[in-house]
Amino acid sequence: MAAWGQRLAGVRGVLLDISGVLFDGAEGSGVPIAGSVEAVARLKRSRLKVRFCTNESQKSLGDLVRLLQQLGFDISEGEVTAPAPATCLILKERGLRPYLLIHDGIRSEFDQIDTSNPNCVVIADAGESFSYQNMNKAFQVLMELENPVLISLGKGRYYKETSGLMLDVGAYVKALEYACGIEAEVVGKPSPEYFKSALQEMGLEAHQAVMIGDDIVGDVGGAQQCGMRALQVRTGKFRPSDEHHPEVKADGLLPMSGDREGVQGTAGADPCFGQRMCHPRAVGSVSGCCC
Amino acid sequence: MAAWGQRLAGVRGVLLDISGVLFDGAEGSGVPIAGSVEAVARLKRSRLKVRFCTNESQKSLGDLVRLLQQLGFDISEGEVTAPAPATCLILKERGLRPYLLIHDGIRSEFDQIDTSNPNCVVIADAGESFSYQNMNKAFQVLMELENPVLISLGKGRYYKETSGLMLDVGAYVKALEYACGIEAEVVGKPSPEYFKSALQEMGLEAHQAVMIGDDIVGDVGGAQQCGMRALQVRTGKFRPSDEHHPEVKADGLLPMSGDREGVQGTAGADPCFGQRMCHPRAVGSVSGCCC
Repeated sequence: MAAWGQRLAGVRGVLLDISGVLFDGAEGSGVPIAGSVEAVARLKRSRLKVRFCTNESQKSLGDLVRLLQQLGFDISEGEVTAPAPATCLILKERGLRPYLLIHDGIRSEFDQIDTSNPNCVVIADAGESFSYQNMNKAFQVLMELENPVLISLGKGRYYKETSGLMLDVGAYVKALEYACGIEAEVVGKPSPEYFKSALQEMGLEAHQAVMIGDDIVGDVGGAQQCGMRALQVRTGKFRPSDEHHPEVKADGLLPMSGDREGVQGTAGADPCFGQRMCHPRAVGSVSGCCC
Repeated sequence: MAAWGQRLAGVRGVLLDISGVLFDGAEGSGVPIAGSVEAVARLKRSRLKVRFCTNESQKSLGDLVRLLQQLGFDISEGEVTAPAPATCLILKERGLRPYLLIHDGIRSEFDQIDTSNPNCVVIADAGESFSYQNMNKAFQVLMELENPVLISLGKGRYYKETSGLMLDVGAYVKALEYACGIEAEVVGKPSPEYFKSALQEMGLEAHQAVMIGDDIVGDVGGAQQCGMRALQVRTGKFRPSDEHHPEVKADGLLPMSGDREGVQGTAGADPCFGQRMCHPRAVGSVSGCCC
């Protein structure tokens, strides 16, 4: 594989996934991934543009940013691209009244949305609210519609909390798609609209940006489909089998701090990688290496 | 379409689905579909062999048969092919210790199965037990295994209760398949093993048997794949769109009693159909017409 400087040549901005890259969530809270607070600070001091790109759909944008600030991150709501606000725009534009299969933590994002007499379903990472009763209600709403519309905030397979891997919204989307014989419209990663919107906010072209995430399909594959470069971290939901994914190959793999196998195996002889790119300082080292 | 006598020539046995064909379930009970008790009685008086073929996985076989007997059906446990006993055989043969994602009503079927330190997941129509917590536990068990094994009792999309359409196990199977990147092994309709086992019990070849069910894929498609003929009833989960299914076409459609459109549209000028095949008496009329 080419040296890091070559692989990241021309990068002027970094899109950072949040969960599994900056922190691991836990019930109502979370734990920063070691070194990530400093990495974000270093990145923001550099000449690179930075945008946070999340599919978080259990917490409102405000609650998520407050949590990250409490954990020490330099972040504000205006720097985050998240799926709920984009979903509200779509609902209003198309006159859609959703049955909301969502977590109570994000319900406030939909305060201005008419949910009477539903003519579509919006599904997000509902967590414990993915009860049989709620899933069946969503199913029945869809089956009653002549043209069923299912809008999903992301399609992740799972994510990582401190307690372990957790089923994500994508699994439940597949359940409804199969039961109803339909295909969901995805708002959020890996949809091209999501990445284009983030790039627009940054004022960058795809070839000028690099995505850093822990999801080989949603982050890496989605960004690459849009013409970006994309690196996968070895934290969060990363699993060794991701390195042999049948369809997606990251432009680089960022090993965990002290992970010698990863450093040697992935970065080869590139001294810059060995010294600076050890994840979780990876995000900061992009500025050190390339700008 | 050919006349009914021609389409059912050489039939020596009938495989009858239960839910949606004989009765519609309700919380802990059920309601016979009008005329079906008499139809089963007439069929059993004929020279045709009869077997009941169900994917029922909320109730034990004993409970299901007792309920049907209470509703007036002439049925015994030995006449029913159901997925739970077949699953127990597979588990024992392969030394599998399942995490059971099932309804409490069927748990007794697995009394003799070792469930310690699970090395596979068995999923059935768990109903209200499809909580996020239980689904996540099944997911975590599978993700911990080097060779994850997911065994599903059927893969139905939905079924009908008196209160409406209900999500079936197939939807939740798709969720786990997507999250874990695996494919489930299906015990029950539409797996070929299931139909072959039922035919073996009847001592018939596939071309000598007709399946009658309400599921265009699980009943009709599955049976046809095995070389049987298959009729769909217009009760249970039947929906008009089934008539235009992209992959499966029933050998006949059995309209509801008094459904003139159905009689005229489907059966054409066949007087035998018009007089006797009006579903729900359809199952009885096979004997009247063809034997």
